[in-house]
Amino acid sequence: MSLTAKYLKTRKHTENICSPLHTEDYVVQPIADVSPPKWHLGHTTWFFETLILKPNLKGYQEFNPDFAFVFNSYYESLGARVIRTQRGNLSRPTVNEVYQYRVYVDEAMQQLLSTPISSELETLIVLGCNHEEQHQELLWTDIKYILGNNPLLPAYEEAHPSAYAAPQPASYTHIKAGVYQIGYTGSDFCYDNELGVHQVYLQEAEISNQLVTNGEYLEFLNIGGYKQFEHWHAEAWDWVKNNAVTSPMYWYQIDGQWQSYTMHGLKRLDLNEPVSHISYYEAAAYAAWKGMRLPTEFEWEVASGSFDWGLRWEWTESAYLPYPGFARVPGPVGEYNGKFMVNQKVLRGASAFTPPNHSRNTYRNFFHPHLRWQLTGIRLAR
Amino acid sequence: MSLTAKYLKTRKHTENICSPLHTEDYVVQPIADVSPPKWHLGHTTWFFETLILKPNLKGYQEFNPDFAFVFNSYYESLGARVIRTQRGNLSRPTVNEVYQYRVYVDEAMQQLLSTPISSELETLIVLGCNHEEQHQELLWTDIKYILGNNPLLPAYEEAHPSAYAAPQPASYTHIKAGVYQIGYTGSDFCYDNELGVHQVYLQEAEISNQLVTNGEYLEFLNIGGYKQFEHWHAEAWDWVKNNAVTSPMYWYQIDGQWQSYTMHGLKRLDLNEPVSHISYYEAAAYAAWKGMRLPTEFEWEVASGSFDWGLRWEWTESAYLPYPGFARVPGPVGEYNGKFMVNQKVLRGASAFTPPNHSRNTYRNFFHPHLRWQLTGIRLAR
Amino acid sequence: MSLTAKYLKTRKHTENICSPLHTEDYVVQPIADVSPPKWHLGHTTWFFETLILKPNLKGYQEFNPDFAFVFNSYYESLGARVIRTQRGNLSRPTVNEVYQYRVYVDEAMQQLLSTPISSELETLIVLGCNHEEQHQELLWTDIKYILGNNPLLPAYEEAHPSAYAAPQPASYTHIKAGVYQIGYTGSDFCYDNELGVHQVYLQEAEISNQLVTNGEYLEFLNIGGYKQFEHWHAEAWDWVKNNAVTSPMYWYQIDGQWQSYTMHGLKRLDLNEPVSHISYYEAAAYAAWKGMRLPTEFEWEVASGSFDWGLRWEWTESAYLPYPGFARVPGPVGEYNGKFMVNQKVLRGASAFTPPNHSRNTYRNFFHPHLRWQLTGIRLAR
Amino acid sequence: MSLTAKYLKTRKHTENICSPLHTEDYVVQPIADVSPPKWHLGHTTWFFETLILKPNLKGYQEFNPDFAFVFNSYYESLGARVIRTQRGNLSRPTVNEVYQYRVYVDEAMQQLLSTPISSELETLIVLGCNHEEQHQELLWTDIKYILGNNPLLPAYEEAHPSAYAAPQPASYTHIKAGVYQIGYTGSDFCYDNELGVHQVYLQEAEISNQLVTNGEYLEFLNIGGYKQFEHWHAEAWDWVKNNAVTSPMYWYQIDGQWQSYTMHGLKRLDLNEPVSHISYYEAAAYAAWKGMRLPTEFEWEVASGSFDWGLRWEWTESAYLPYPGFARVPGPVGEYNGKFMVNQKVLRGASAFTPPNHSRNTYRNFFHPHLRWQLTGIRLAR
Repeated sequence: MSLTAKYLKTRKHTENICSPLHTEDYVVQPIADVSPPKWHLGHTTWFFETLILKPNLKGYQEFNPDFAFVFNSYYESLGARVIRTQRGNLSRPTVNEVYQYRVYVDEAMQQLLSTPISSELETLIVLGCNHEEQHQELLWTDIKYILGNNPLLPAYEEAHPSAYAAPQPASYTHIKAGVYQIGYTGSDFCYDNELGVHQVYLQEAEISNQLVTNGEYLEFLNIGGYKQFEHWHAEAWDWVKNNAVTSPMYWYQIDGQWQSYTMHGLKRLDLNEPVSHISYYEAAAYAAWKGMRLPTEFEWEVASGSFDWGLRWEWTESAYLPYPGFARVPGPVGEYNGKFMVNQKVLRGASAFTPPNHSRNTYRNFFHPHLRWQLTGIRLAR
Repeated sequence: MSLTAKYLKTRKHTENICSPLHTEDYVVQPIADVSPPKWHLGHTTWFFETLILKPNLKGYQEFNPDFAFVFNSYYESLGARVIRTQRGNLSRPTVNEVYQYRVYVDEAMQQLLSTPISSELETLIVLGCNHEEQHQELLWTDIKYILGNNPLLPAYEEAHPSAYAAPQPASYTHIKAGVYQIGYTGSDFCYDNELGVHQVYLQEAEISNQLVTNGEYLEFLNIGGYKQFEHWHAEAWDWVKNNAVTSPMYWYQIDGQWQSYTMHGLKRLDLNEPVSHISYYEAAAYAAWKGMRLPTEFEWEVASGSFDWGLRWEWTESAYLPYPGFARVPGPVGEYNGKFMVNQKVLRGASAFTPPNHSRNTYRNFFHPHLRWQLTGIRLAR
Repeated sequence: MSLTAKYLKTRKHTENICSPLHTEDYVVQPIADVSPPKWHLGHTTWFFETLILKPNLKGYQEFNPDFAFVFNSYYESLGARVIRTQRGNLSRPTVNEVYQYRVYVDEAMQQLLSTPISSELETLIVLGCNHEEQHQELLWTDIKYILGNNPLLPAYEEAHPSAYAAPQPASYTHIKAGVYQIGYTGSDFCYDNELGVHQVYLQEAEISNQLVTNGEYLEFLNIGGYKQFEHWHAEAWDWVKNNAVTSPMYWYQIDGQWQSYTMHGLKRLDLNEPVSHISYYEAAAYAAWKGMRLPTEFEWEVASGSFDWGLRWEWTESAYLPYPGFARVPGPVGEYNGKFMVNQKVLRGASAFTPPNHSRNTYRNFFHPHLRWQLTGIRLAR
Repeated sequence: MSLTAKYLKTRKHTENICSPLHTEDYVVQPIADVSPPKWHLGHTTWFFETLILKPNLKGYQEFNPDFAFVFNSYYESLGARVIRTQRGNLSRPTVNEVYQYRVYVDEAMQQLLSTPISSELETLIVLGCNHEEQHQELLWTDIKYILGNNPLLPAYEEAHPSAYAAPQPASYTHIKAGVYQIGYTGSDFCYDNELGVHQVYLQEAEISNQLVTNGEYLEFLNIGGYKQFEHWHAEAWDWVKNNAVTSPMYWYQIDGQWQSYTMHGLKRLDLNEPVSHISYYEAAAYAAWKGMRLPTEFEWEVASGSFDWGLRWEWTESAYLPYPGFARVPGPVGEYNGKFMVNQKVLRGASAFTPPNHSRNTYRNFFHPHLRWQLTGIRLAR
C-alpha cells in the first residue's frame, strides 16, 4: 500500500469507529483515564499538523492556533497542554469544527504526500499513522466506558454476537532453559521500545496455550477470591478494599445471574469467552490462587509462535523498562515511550479492539497495574 | 394571564435561553455547582411529570422511567438521584431526546390544564413555573461559566452592550429604630420561606442607595486588599490563599488592562458597572475595608422601597434561617427550602439574569458564602 | 480576688487538669480540631508573653524566640503559625520545657503585677485569664478525645461517678411576644461579642426547662432516626452518610448493650443523663423528629433565668453573627472573635467542663455545625 | 556467636539507638511512611511474641492481648492492624510500658533459648533478628525525619563528624557480555527474595566505582535540572511539580549557602560526601542528564566485588520482581516479601544506618520510586 493510501485508510478508520455516536457521546469524560472521542479525533490530527505539516509543508497555515492548547497531550516540549482531567469540560471546539479540522489537515497532508518526501519524513508519517492506530483502540475502550457507565446502558451497535466455542483442553508450550534473542529485527515500522535487540537467559518454563475464560475466572470469584487477602499483593488488597471491587469491570449480577455490558448492550455472561477488563492485580491474584504465575514478557515473546493471540492484551509479570541501549530521541518524538518507563506493567498480544496489522509479537503495550478499562486478559505460566 | 399561558410562556422562555447553544454546550459540567443545560431542561420537566402529571392526569404514561433517575435533583423522598458531580458524565439521553421529553410533557400538561383543576393543584403548577424560573437564572449563570471557562472564550451572543452611566453621588436611606414587619403578605405566589410574617426590632441604620461599582472595587484590589488578612473572616482568608484568589471571577488582566468575560465575550472592564461575581467573603472584606458592613436582610427589606434593585443579587449579613413558625410541608415539596437552612447566606434583590416578575422585595435567595458564579454584588450599610 | 491571685489560680488550674496525664498524652493530635495538651499549655503562656510581657515589662527576654512559631494560633498579625494539623508532629519542645516556659512566664507576670498597672493592661490580663479558661475547657475535651480514641480506652481518672436522677416532668418557660434587651450590661469581664446591647423583638414561644436525656435520644436512634433523611438538613444528611454516623460520639453498642466512653473509662449508658457529644445536625434532626425546634440565642437569653444550665453547651438555631454596632478592635486582640462570624452556630449555657464562673447568660460560644467533640446537648423550643 | 548472644545483641542495639531520645520523640509520626520509634520497639517485640513464643514456649502468657492490635504491621493473616497513618495518634501504651514489654519478652525468649530448639525454630528466630535489624535502620531514618522536620531542628547527638575526603578520579568496572549467576548461594541467613539462584544474560556494560557526590549533584541543580522536564519520567515530573521539589530532602539554602540537616544538626553541605535522601526519580533524572543510566540489579551484583559499597542504598533500574521459582511460604512469614513485588524499585548496597553484617551483595532492598527519607544514593552505569 502506498503511504498516501495507508494514511487515508488510517484516518478513515478512526472516523468509522465514531460513526454510530451521537454528538453528545463525543464530549464527556467520565474518568481521567478516558478521553472524550472528540479529543482523540483532534489530538491525532494535531499530531500530523504539528510534527509534519508545520515543519515540512511550505506556506502551511495552522487551522486554529488555539487548538494546539486544546489537543496537546503529554508532549511537554510543545507547550501548555489541557490537563487530562479537564478535557470533559470543553464544549468547544464543537464536533463539527473538529471534523472540519480533520478535513483541512487531510487535504494538506495529501498535498505534502504528492511531493517527494525524505525517508526521515516518511518514518515520521508512519509513526503518526501508528499513533492514530493506538488512539483507535483507545477510542473503542473509551466509548465502551462512556456508554457502559451511563445509567441507560445504551448499545454502541445492535448486532448479535455469536457465542464462543468451548475452550480446547489445557495445553502448554514448553520453553527450554537457555539464551534467547528479544526485540524487533524486521524492516517495517516498530516502536523505539522494541528496538535494542538483545539476549536474555530464560529458565525452563511452561506457558499456557489458552487464555483464562470467564467461566474459570468465575470459580475464583465464587470461592471468595475477592475476600481472601492471601492471593493478593499488598497494594492490590488495598485497591480491592478501597474500591469495593468484587468482580471484573462491566460484570453485573442481576436476579442471581451474571451479565456483562458489551458493545451490543447488556448480555448474559458467556462462560467460554476469555475473561476481560481485569487489572494486573486481579490477573496476578488469579494466577496465585491457581498455584501458577503470569509469564514474563520474554517468555511470552519466545513462546508466542505456538499459540494464538489477538483477543486480549495479556498482562505479564514484567515491569515496563528500557531494553539495553535504549535512548530517548531528542525532541517531542522522544517523549513517546521512554518517559513512561516506571511503575507500569508490560502487556503482550493484541485485543479485539486493536486495528488489523497494528500489533506484532515484539509489541510492548503498557498500563498501570490497577487499570482495567482496556481489553485485558490472563494467560498463565509455571 | 391564564395558567396555561403562564405555563407555556415559562416553558418557552427556558428554550429561548438555550437557543444560541451548540449541542456540545448542553452536556458539560466544569464544576460541581454548575449543571449541564441539558440537565436543567430535563429536571424542570421531570418536576411537572412527577409532581403534577403522574398523580393527577389519568392514564398518563411516563415518557421514560429511567429519566426519574437521571433528572432527579435533591428530592430524597422520590428515590435515587444522579450525584451532582456526575451529571457532566452523561452523554445520554441526548439533547434531542430531552427536547422530545419537553414536548411530550407540555402536551400532557395542556391536556390537564384543559380540565377543571383544584386550587391545590393550581398552587403546585405555579410552584412548578416558579421552580423553572429559578432554573432559568441558573441556566444563564451555568452557560456563562461553561463558555467563560473554555480556553476559546466563545461569546454567547455577539450583541454590543451599551456602557453604564456614571453612578449617582452617594446617598443613603435612613432606618429609624423600632419594630417592623417582615415577610410576604400579598395574595400571589411566594415561597414558603417568605411566609411567617413577623415583627423584628431594628436599630437605627443607614443603607446605601447605590451598588458598589467595578471602579470602586478595583480600588480595594489596587491597595492590596487580597493580600491583607485583616479585612477577611478567618475561613475567607483560607479560601483566598487556598484558591489563589486575586480578583472577582471573570476578571483578567491582559497587557496591564482589566478585562472581563461577558456573555458577549471578553470586554474592557466597565468601571461604572456594578461589581459582580464576588463571594460573600469578598463582599464582607470590601465592606470591612470601607469601615462599613453589609445590611441584614431585614434592613434591606424595610429600606427596599427607597432604592432600585434588580441588577445584582446582594449579599446580606443574614444567615439563611427559618422565619418564626416555619414548618416543612410533608412530602417532596417540603424539601424545597427548609433543608438548606444552615451555613448559607441570604441574598436579596434580583439580577439581570432573573426572569421578569420572578423576584419581589420579600424574596430570599441563598448561597454558600464562597460561591460567585451567580450575578452577585454589594450594597453597603452602616 | 486580686488580679495576681486570679492569674495564679487560673494558671494552676490548667496544670491541675493535666496532672493525671502521661508525657505521651501531651503530644498527640488525633484529628485537626483537637490540639495536643502540650500545645494548650504553651499557647496560653505565649499569649501572656507576647501580648503582655513583651510590650509592658521592661527588660523582658523571651524564653525562646522559636516558641512564637510553635505556639502561635490564629493570630495572623503576629506572624507565621504552625498549621493546626501539624501540631501533633512536634516532639519538641518537650513537655518539661513547656512547663519551664510556664514557670518563667509566671515569674515575669508576678514581677509585672507587683508594679502599678494601667486599667487597659488590667483588661488585657483579664482577657488572658479568660482565654486560658477557654483552653481549660478545650483541654478537657481534647484529653477525652485522645484517650477515648485510643484502642486501649484508658480512663483519665478512676473515680466512680454517681448516677443521674430521673429527670423532672416536662415543663416549659413561656416567652411573651415583645421587645427584649440582649447583651451584657454588667461591669465585669465579658467578650466583645456580647457587647452592643440592643433590642430584639421575640414572637411568643415556649422553651423547655429540661435538657434532652440519653434515654430520650435513644428513642430517636431506635426508631431509625439516622436512616430517615426527612429529619435532616441536606448537608447534615450528606454528613451522616459520608461519615457513617449512627449514634452520638463515644457511644458503643457492645453485646447488645449501649455503653459510652467517659473520663472514667467505658460505662453503661446512663439513660437519665443529658445527651452529649452531638452535632448541631443531630440536635436539629432530633428536634424536627419531635415536631419542635431549637431555641434562638435570644429566646434562650431571655428565658435563661427560669431553668438551670451549666451541664451542656446547648446548640441554638442562631448563626454566629455580630451584634449591631460590633466592630473589630485593631490589632491582634481584634482577631479574637469577629473573624469567626460566618458559618458557625451559637451555643449557650456552659458544660461540666467549663471552669467555674467562666460562663454567664450572655456568653456566646460557637462551633461549626458538624462538630461534636465538645460537651454539647439539646434543649427544645416550640 | 551463639543464638542467644545474637538475639540479645540485636535487642540491645535497638535500644541503644533510642537512648538519646526524649519520651516525646518516641510518639509522633509526621508522615505515613515514618513510624513512631515506640511502634518500632513494640512491633519487633510483638514479632517474637507472636511467631515464636506463643506457638513454642509452653505456658507463655501474652504480655497484653491488646498489643497485638496496636503493634501489628502488615501481617494480614494475624488479624486487625492499626492503620499506618494512625500510629502517631496513640499516646498509650506509654514508652515505659513498651520497654517493660521488651523486658518481658526478652526473659521469655531466654527461657526458650535455654531449651533445645529445632532448626526450623532457629531459622525463625534468626529471621526475627534480621527483621529487627531492618527496623533498626528504619529507626535511624524515622528519628532523622522526626527531628529534621521539627521547626527547632534539634540534633540527635552533638558529635562533630569529620569531613569527607575528595573523591577518587572516575573509574569504571567493565562487565563482559555473557551469562552470569544471580542469587544467594551461601549457608547463612538470607531472605527468601534472594533465593532462586538463576542465570541471567548481561550485555556488555560499565559501572562506576564511585557514588555521585553532593558536589556533582549540585551541578545538576545549578543548571536548572529541577526545571527541565526532559530529564524526568512523566510521573516524576508530576511529582516534582506537585510537591514543589527543588533539591534533595534535608537541603536548605540559607543566606545563599547550602546546608543540610544531619543527625548532628544543621551543617554546611559537604561537597565530597555522597549525595543522599534522593528519590529514584531524581537518581534517574540525574543519570539521564549525564547521558548515562542506573545499573540493573544484576549488573550491580556481578560487578559488586570491584567497588566499595555500604554508604548508601543505591537505586537500580530494576523493578522489584520475584526471581524464577519464587513462591510465597504459606502463613504469616510468607507475607514478608512477596506481596510487595509490584511498583517498587530494587536498591542494592547498604547505608551508614544499616546494622553491621546485615547486608550482602545479593541483598535486595526495595522502596517506591518517590520515597527519599531513606539514606539513598546514586551509582551510574553506561
